[in-house]
Amino acid sequence: MKPLKIGILGLGTVGGGLLEMALGNGPLSKMVEITGVSARNKNRPRPVDISKIAWFDDPSELAKHENVDVIVELMGGADGPAYHAVITALKAKKNVVTANKAMLSAHGVELAKLADENGVQIRYEAAVAGGIPIVKALREGMAANNIKNIMGVMNGTSNYILTEMAKTGRPFGDVLKDAQALGLAEADPTLDINGGDAGHKLALLCALAFNGEPKFEEIELEGIERVEPVDLESATFLGFAVKLIASAGLNDNKLSQSVRPSLVALANPLAQLDGALNAILVEAEPVGTLTFIGSGAGAGPTASAVAADLVDLFYNDVRPLFAGPCITNSNIEIAPKKSLNAKFYVRFNVADKPGVIAKISDTLARHQVSIESILQKPPTKPDNVAIVLTTQKCDELILIDAIDELSKYDEFIGKPLIMPILN
Amino acid sequence: MKPLKIGILGLGTVGGGLLEMALGNGPLSKMVEITGVSARNKNRPRPVDISKIAWFDDPSELAKHENVDVIVELMGGADGPAYHAVITALKAKKNVVTANKAMLSAHGVELAKLADENGVQIRYEAAVAGGIPIVKALREGMAANNIKNIMGVMNGTSNYILTEMAKTGRPFGDVLKDAQALGLAEADPTLDINGGDAGHKLALLCALAFNGEPKFEEIELEGIERVEPVDLESATFLGFAVKLIASAGLNDNKLSQSVRPSLVALANPLAQLDGALNAILVEAEPVGTLTFIGSGAGAGPTASAVAADLVDLFYNDVRPLFAGPCITNSNIEIAPKKSLNAKFYVRFNVADKPGVIAKISDTLARHQVSIESILQKPPTKPDNVAIVLTTQKCDELILIDAIDELSKYDEFIGKPLIMPILN
Repeated sequence: MKPLKIGILGLGTVGGGLLEMALGNGPLSKMVEITGVSARNKNRPRPVDISKIAWFDDPSELAKHENVDVIVELMGGADGPAYHAVITALKAKKNVVTANKAMLSAHGVELAKLADENGVQIRYEAAVAGGIPIVKALREGMAANNIKNIMGVMNGTSNYILTEMAKTGRPFGDVLKDAQALGLAEADPTLDINGGDAGHKLALLCALAFNGEPKFEEIELEGIERVEPVDLESATFLGFAVKLIASAGLNDNKLSQSVRPSLVALANPLAQLDGALNAILVEAEPVGTLTFIGSGAGAGPTASAVAADLVDLFYNDVRPLFAGPCITNSNIEIAPKKSLNAKFYVRFNVADKPGVIAKISDTLARHQVSIESILQKPPTKPDNVAIVLTTQKCDELILIDAIDELSKYDEFIGKPLIMPILN
Repeated sequence: MKPLKIGILGLGTVGGGLLEMALGNGPLSKMVEITGVSARNKNRPRPVDISKIAWFDDPSELAKHENVDVIVELMGGADGPAYHAVITALKAKKNVVTANKAMLSAHGVELAKLADENGVQIRYEAAVAGGIPIVKALREGMAANNIKNIMGVMNGTSNYILTEMAKTGRPFGDVLKDAQALGLAEADPTLDINGGDAGHKLALLCALAFNGEPKFEEIELEGIERVEPVDLESATFLGFAVKLIASAGLNDNKLSQSVRPSLVALANPLAQLDGALNAILVEAEPVGTLTFIGSGAGAGPTASAVAADLVDLFYNDVRPLFAGPCITNSNIEIAPKKSLNAKFYVRFNVADKPGVIAKISDTLARHQVSIESILQKPPTKPDNVAIVLTTQKCDELILIDAIDELSKYDEFIGKPLIMPILN
């Protein structure tokens, strides 16, 4: 078989990792030839010498180059140059391999259509969970299954921060600064922390597993910014870990999709997941539950996923972009947000006055929400005390109503933190 | 695309599960049509009605039927009718999907050659770790990686027995009988218990990852028959779980492959693996370590893997049988057996006489083997007392020499149990 001629757009960490694989002695070196590269800065230090590779200032010029079979897009960004270059490549009938979850979440349907019209493919293993071959597992390994639930930790930065907060008892802001200094968080960490990055990944997995189209805007998103040391301490005391959980599931043909901090039982493999790892559990019929764990980011793991897509194209393996064979039911509805029925963790911040616990318990009782456990340590700051409770199973909307009612009392400070409790 | 015409040989648990998928409403039903089935007993009760499906008394007749694209071989057995039918199918230019690890371990190279000559494929996702798509992950998802190590729990029956022994303190024989009564162990459990079944699976994974050919006879095999309640109790006390570990790794271009009971640190995901689950850790460059967990047996999981192979064939995806793109080095040597350098667990059975511990410690010291910990409980049976010790890192061959020397003393009863300690 003839090597694929590839053009690489973007030579950051992942692009550098891919160059090392393509120019080294490993398997990929026999399957690809690099026609050219394009990036913002030609002279930035890189792990390999690129002086002998053709350089293109304009990514779109490389994207439509006659001597290119596959464009590898590693620039990032939902719109702008990456999007423009991918459109150009597809119109020029080039296959596209991309790690760009933001772009696919926003424009996946349009790009899928354009690829179809031009008889080429878009591959995106690297866009979800770095080195874990989860796109392949869902699209091919579980192809004949009906997917019921997906649940995972899909953002290493926020997992690292939560892990460090739990270990050290230090507050969110301090740990985030350290993570930035260590290179474990971006200078602008917004998407990692607010659940957006995990949401982009979940949208792609849901497209594969459930509805055939990524629908990022339909995902319920909540980040980890409001998680405090007291929450991690309380969760540990109760026998849980706090994780930013991306989850999606079908119930009565309604699809719930959310990314939110959640309490996870210690027996769940997700609870054990420390540091920058990613893990995904998929529950399906008839295979049961499969668990995948690995590095969710970094040069090596992400380049490994890009390379796997290139190997698939080398073998001329043609698969549907989103609507894999596992899509049997196109009548799936999207469940309304906050429609979860579960046990919940609630942390109130209150002024330490008599009757606060009575107000909480009365109000919840009136809304038929049963308290399972309640924790309050002797106050160190009487003007701001954390009261933590867990509920029996209830509808989240009813719980929110009860909490809204409590907020009218002066003793209650700010918005309580609500996290679902998962087994 | 046109549905694949398939013939199914063998209608046991997995065959029944596959029939349910193919005749149901799920994704597979749109991709395959059943030309015929063959099994030992036409009238055995089955989960689906097969009266409208063409029945073949002779599997080889179906295997070469003109109206068949793919033969699904689920009869089992390394030789005999399964082997004969697969040979017949390949010669008749039919693709073959099989769950038969024993056959592929024994005849894989010959069958691969025959498939090549006839321009057809053999697929065997179901032969390794049931529903876990590990063949696909190694062959495709990690295709551009250099594989360094594979370590896993690949036999659910022995894992169930060890888990139950640890929980209940009951001896091997009793737990095995219960497992047989519950249908969790075969009437003839030999291959599950002596490491043979896990060895067959490891041989296939090593073919994919390292040497391009399954070489079952080169795997160091030791079963769980000699593990006693005292070993599980001691391991727990020392902070480890006992698991039947299948492992293979490259060191200095030498390949070590073994299946043997081992002590696994509790932080390792394999230690947490209870019951009939399988788990596999693959360490590779550049992706790092990937972990896969799921059901290793049973109708649903295994049929899911068979169906994934059928979906691949439906999409006309052509891949090398064993020597995937990850095979870059054909000069790999096989390491001699017992060449492990590790910490070890040793359980001696001795008569409770003065000086036994002195003999053990003197002899090990003379062989430069350092003791890390030693456990002896007050004896309940003075004629047979268990002494458990763990060593510092040492060469297993040296440890075996020291132990052989000890066996000349009358106080030492039987052959000590040696298990490596893994992190």
